[in-house]
Amino acid sequence: MKLTILGCHSATPRINTHPTAQVLEVKGHVFLIDCGEGTQVQLRRYKVKFNRIKHIFISHLHGDHFFGLVGLISTFRLLTRETDLHIYGPKGIKEVITLQMKLADSWTNYKLIFHELESKSSERIYEDDKIEIFTIPLDHRVYTNGFLFKEKPGERKLDPVAAKRANIHTAYFQKLKQGFNVENQEGVIISNETVTVPGPKPKSYAFCSDTQYSEEIVPIIKNATALYHESTFLEKHKDLAPMTKHSTAKEAAQIAQLANVKKLILGHYSTRYDDLSAFKTEAGEIFKKVELAEAGKTFEF
Amino acid sequence: MKLTILGCHSATPRINTHPTAQVLEVKGHVFLIDCGEGTQVQLRRYKVKFNRIKHIFISHLHGDHFFGLVGLISTFRLLTRETDLHIYGPKGIKEVITLQMKLADSWTNYKLIFHELESKSSERIYEDDKIEIFTIPLDHRVYTNGFLFKEKPGERKLDPVAAKRANIHTAYFQKLKQGFNVENQEGVIISNETVTVPGPKPKSYAFCSDTQYSEEIVPIIKNATALYHESTFLEKHKDLAPMTKHSTAKEAAQIAQLANVKKLILGHYSTRYDDLSAFKTEAGEIFKKVELAEAGKTFEF
Repeated sequence: MKLTILGCHSATPRINTHPTAQVLEVKGHVFLIDCGEGTQVQLRRYKVKFNRIKHIFISHLHGDHFFGLVGLISTFRLLTRETDLHIYGPKGIKEVITLQMKLADSWTNYKLIFHELESKSSERIYEDDKIEIFTIPLDHRVYTNGFLFKEKPGERKLDPVAAKRANIHTAYFQKLKQGFNVENQEGVIISNETVTVPGPKPKSYAFCSDTQYSEEIVPIIKNATALYHESTFLEKHKDLAPMTKHSTAKEAAQIAQLANVKKLILGHYSTRYDDLSAFKTEAGEIFKKVELAEAGKTFEF
Repeated sequence: MKLTILGCHSATPRINTHPTAQVLEVKGHVFLIDCGEGTQVQLRRYKVKFNRIKHIFISHLHGDHFFGLVGLISTFRLLTRETDLHIYGPKGIKEVITLQMKLADSWTNYKLIFHELESKSSERIYEDDKIEIFTIPLDHRVYTNGFLFKEKPGERKLDPVAAKRANIHTAYFQKLKQGFNVENQEGVIISNETVTVPGPKPKSYAFCSDTQYSEEIVPIIKNATALYHESTFLEKHKDLAPMTKHSTAKEAAQIAQLANVKKLILGHYSTRYDDLSAFKTEAGEIFKKVELAEAGKTFEF
């Protein structure tokens, strides 16, 4: 999985800070997660091919997470896109986008498919043969979801020496990789585990922004390969976190620890902080494998 | 009058081009004209004080002229603005802004006053003791207005020697500047023109974007001190102009000449052109006093 941060500040866009948007590349997909104002420019800046984006996930309808969406949709049309575009976001997102297109007497020459979300429990919103995507219900001022991107287990790894020794015909090797028991050339059933080992461990990425501290998400994001958790505030402003339904760096680290994730990525910093290093320090006291999101930075895991 | 260009390209924002937005400073006002995506960042870049903007004029509801408005309105709230904000634009603009605020469960702590436009004739939409603002109905794919900012005639200039010679008491000097005839100290009525001369000529600025070539605007913008006229295309693409209801540089120059304006400013360039100098050349063949708009450039007139 490769994650590119396009913007990771809260509030409004400035000359040197960009609101939330990120691109996750996994199994040939290019998923856009959130789309604050100016995201289309950030996509160009970091050379993301517009046409490869087929699914956009919007966590909630605060401006710093979706005011760039309508412009991106319009730009796709100007670029004569023909590929379907799927948009996942809170109920209401279809109305606001289509109203703006109606007022502009505009249209799209590609299919725009809205998947409006309103469930308060985690649900699977996408599946193909390689990955699944689930919502992560978050606790913010408006209806908000994070998203969990989860690879499906891949094929098992065949031990060709063991398979030969067990007298299995090569025609059955693909079935073995798929996990089935097969008959050998004498008609004896060979147990799969005796000739294969598990394939590479499936990876998962959990995006959690915006939310106040909530242990309810822990079972959903348990053991994730990487967790992006918002950390709007430092300890010195921790009183503001519950008031605005945001989290501190320390709280993000607590969630990472409880969920036993492999890596924590912090972001959604309040623009009141010029120096971000304290976010890493404060989180690092609780959870060691922490990194700071930064516009243009990529994470591979 | 001081005009600051924040963006002057058509279509969608890119790393080095910005969609339409400009700021006109006149008689203590700071007027924002159009508000494409990213305008709030451009306002910061060119150090325009947010709180001085009390009136925003939106020509039409195509994205490159108004997708930055909702973000700017939200930012004003985050900055704890208390000053009233007046928004002038096509009918529908109120619905789209308020829908987005409703979905974000947001509000403004200042008064947001919409002046929705739907007239097909020029109308006065603002007046105070120093200036008047009129719409300029344009001919584009959707309902579109340009805007004419017009200073009112100032005070007349008093000739103190002539006034003394006419035996007028100084108490009447202010009335003379205001253009009235007054009695002198012998009770004789003195005609205003014999002791005053006209004050500085009132200036006017006409903003015309987007529009196809239309001589109907000429009487409205006649003798303007400066005219910003869109010029999306060069001659080599002139067939595209009527098709998309835009203008060429040459057509902008023809309007400038017919309207006898003092200065023409070109803008709203198609992003297909890297070198903009041909816009000036082509317009200059018809109208000499032509300049190119450019993000960050200011014009004083």
